[in-house]
Amino acid sequence: MQLPSPSLVVDRPALEHNIAAIGKTLVGPRLRPHVKAFKSTALARRLADAGHRTFTCATVREAEGMAAADLGDDLLIANEVVDLDQLARAAAIEAGVTLAVDSDQTIDRAASAGLRRVLIDVNVGLPRCGCAPGDAGRLADRARAAGLDVRGVMGYEGHLMMVHDRESRTRKVERAMELLLQASEAVGGDIVSAGGTGTYDTNTWANEIQAGTFVLGDTQYDTLDLPFRLALAVECTVLSINPDGWIVVNAGLKSFGMDHGNPTWPEGDVKFCSDEHTTMRCDDPSRWSIGDRTRLYPAHLDPTVAKHERMWLVDGDDVIDELAVDLRHW
Amino acid sequence: MQLPSPSLVVDRPALEHNIAAIGKTLVGPRLRPHVKAFKSTALARRLADAGHRTFTCATVREAEGMAAADLGDDLLIANEVVDLDQLARAAAIEAGVTLAVDSDQTIDRAASAGLRRVLIDVNVGLPRCGCAPGDAGRLADRARAAGLDVRGVMGYEGHLMMVHDRESRTRKVERAMELLLQASEAVGGDIVSAGGTGTYDTNTWANEIQAGTFVLGDTQYDTLDLPFRLALAVECTVLSINPDGWIVVNAGLKSFGMDHGNPTWPEGDVKFCSDEHTTMRCDDPSRWSIGDRTRLYPAHLDPTVAKHERMWLVDGDDVIDELAVDLRHW
Repeated sequence: MQLPSPSLVVDRPALEHNIAAIGKTLVGPRLRPHVKAFKSTALARRLADAGHRTFTCATVREAEGMAAADLGDDLLIANEVVDLDQLARAAAIEAGVTLAVDSDQTIDRAASAGLRRVLIDVNVGLPRCGCAPGDAGRLADRARAAGLDVRGVMGYEGHLMMVHDRESRTRKVERAMELLLQASEAVGGDIVSAGGTGTYDTNTWANEIQAGTFVLGDTQYDTLDLPFRLALAVECTVLSINPDGWIVVNAGLKSFGMDHGNPTWPEGDVKFCSDEHTTMRCDDPSRWSIGDRTRLYPAHLDPTVAKHERMWLVDGDDVIDELAVDLRHW
Repeated sequence: MQLPSPSLVVDRPALEHNIAAIGKTLVGPRLRPHVKAFKSTALARRLADAGHRTFTCATVREAEGMAAADLGDDLLIANEVVDLDQLARAAAIEAGVTLAVDSDQTIDRAASAGLRRVLIDVNVGLPRCGCAPGDAGRLADRARAAGLDVRGVMGYEGHLMMVHDRESRTRKVERAMELLLQASEAVGGDIVSAGGTGTYDTNTWANEIQAGTFVLGDTQYDTLDLPFRLALAVECTVLSINPDGWIVVNAGLKSFGMDHGNPTWPEGDVKFCSDEHTTMRCDDPSRWSIGDRTRLYPAHLDPTVAKHERMWLVDGDDVIDELAVDLRHW
């Protein structure tokens, strides 16, 4: 079978390697896989089959889809949700969800909407959401007074994912997690949730790790000293060959997440992406023919996957299965 | 009505201004609007109602959707198409399409697939698709020998869209169009198709202009000396307010096309985007409340729209209509 073009392809051996590799360090619920990275219940099911049945979501839509796919044992929406329609949808998920809260208002809205379980989201250094560590205990009290079950704390050290030196990364993660553990002491509950692919093995302080990129990988994470392989590429078609030394394929800005830069082409240099094209320089354009297929590797996984309706599980050129990207949008 | 969040919003007065403004320079078929920029038949219909009933598409999917919406009077797919399944789909569009070709192979495949009309795509300086200007006549002969109706030439001066100085832009466009007019002479046919929003009024050599961005605009094009207004924004919700001077909203890399950089927030500075968040610095965070709505303006229109299922036509805070982004994917 020839795939539609452009298509996302997932290399099965690399996928299976990645899931097995993380399982050596993070057993069962020590990993709470983050579905925002791959947005597919078919891939989430593979993680559940490997013993990781608790999941992290970024959106209500992701949690709804996971629950509908019978993967709702323990879903954490690791973001604040404040829109009333989204809170109502989250509360309506029969399997139940745990929601991140970081302020009086997010607590009050969650309680009013009928949510039952929350984590206190603590700022551990990334300038984004999360309360001040010293305010976590007060917020937990407020949440409990509002009838919410406070399961613990979370704190995402996203600013440390790309610290290349392992020793420096470990030291910085330790300092970030000191803040989270202080908050945990004030808050109570069982959960200390943090981390990501970049710190999955250096963050030994959190008791669960919210990693997702490791499943499929991208060229940015591939620069770290981690045991994961690049499993995701965009397969595309050669449209045009210029004798001056470039070729053009039919995948561009609408196929690739671009915030970390251009995709990587193992057989030459990417010059630039247009909406539906990528122009690539190669030493010997005569090696290529119009209609040839080739694969490019995205720089950032999450926004790449979110642009596509489906992925194709492949082993080399053999197509094994179609995987719906069924957790898209909001 | 409160919109879902995040949502694309289209400001109706700005939209109507933009369509009226381009119509002063490009009357009727002098404008062949490019639907790749907005991917919506509802917006295409507004252009058709303004007298522009010939359209440019980037993908077979766009052409299929336009034909299905009864907007198929004269559809140009201004890209090479070489995958056989896509060529078969293009040939099956009952209204007919004209396809760009730039090589022996693209001509032979188009003819084999049952396409009937082509334009010879000429490289006028952008390193992407397009034959050498001197080869256009030979390709036209080959296409006619294969039974194809060669309607003329196209050549996209995309490398000149962002030349800020009008005089310099005009001179450079003239030189690019000299190449296209030479090719046109060798090729024959009525059509000399080129241009985009950046050159819609300085390109007086092409007899039709393939502009699309002008309809909704983006912050990059807004830096040019053009009479168009920013009509598209992402409406999002304030999730978190940090007393250290930043606020966080619920739209990020999955809502914005990022290849031209961060979106713009008129009320402060954007610090960075994460998958589902944007962190923004503002002088007085106490002005904001959790749950407030605010709007950010994307840096690149086309890949932004392609991330969303729908847009909302608004006038200020009044919601007028829902517009499906019905021309997405391939």
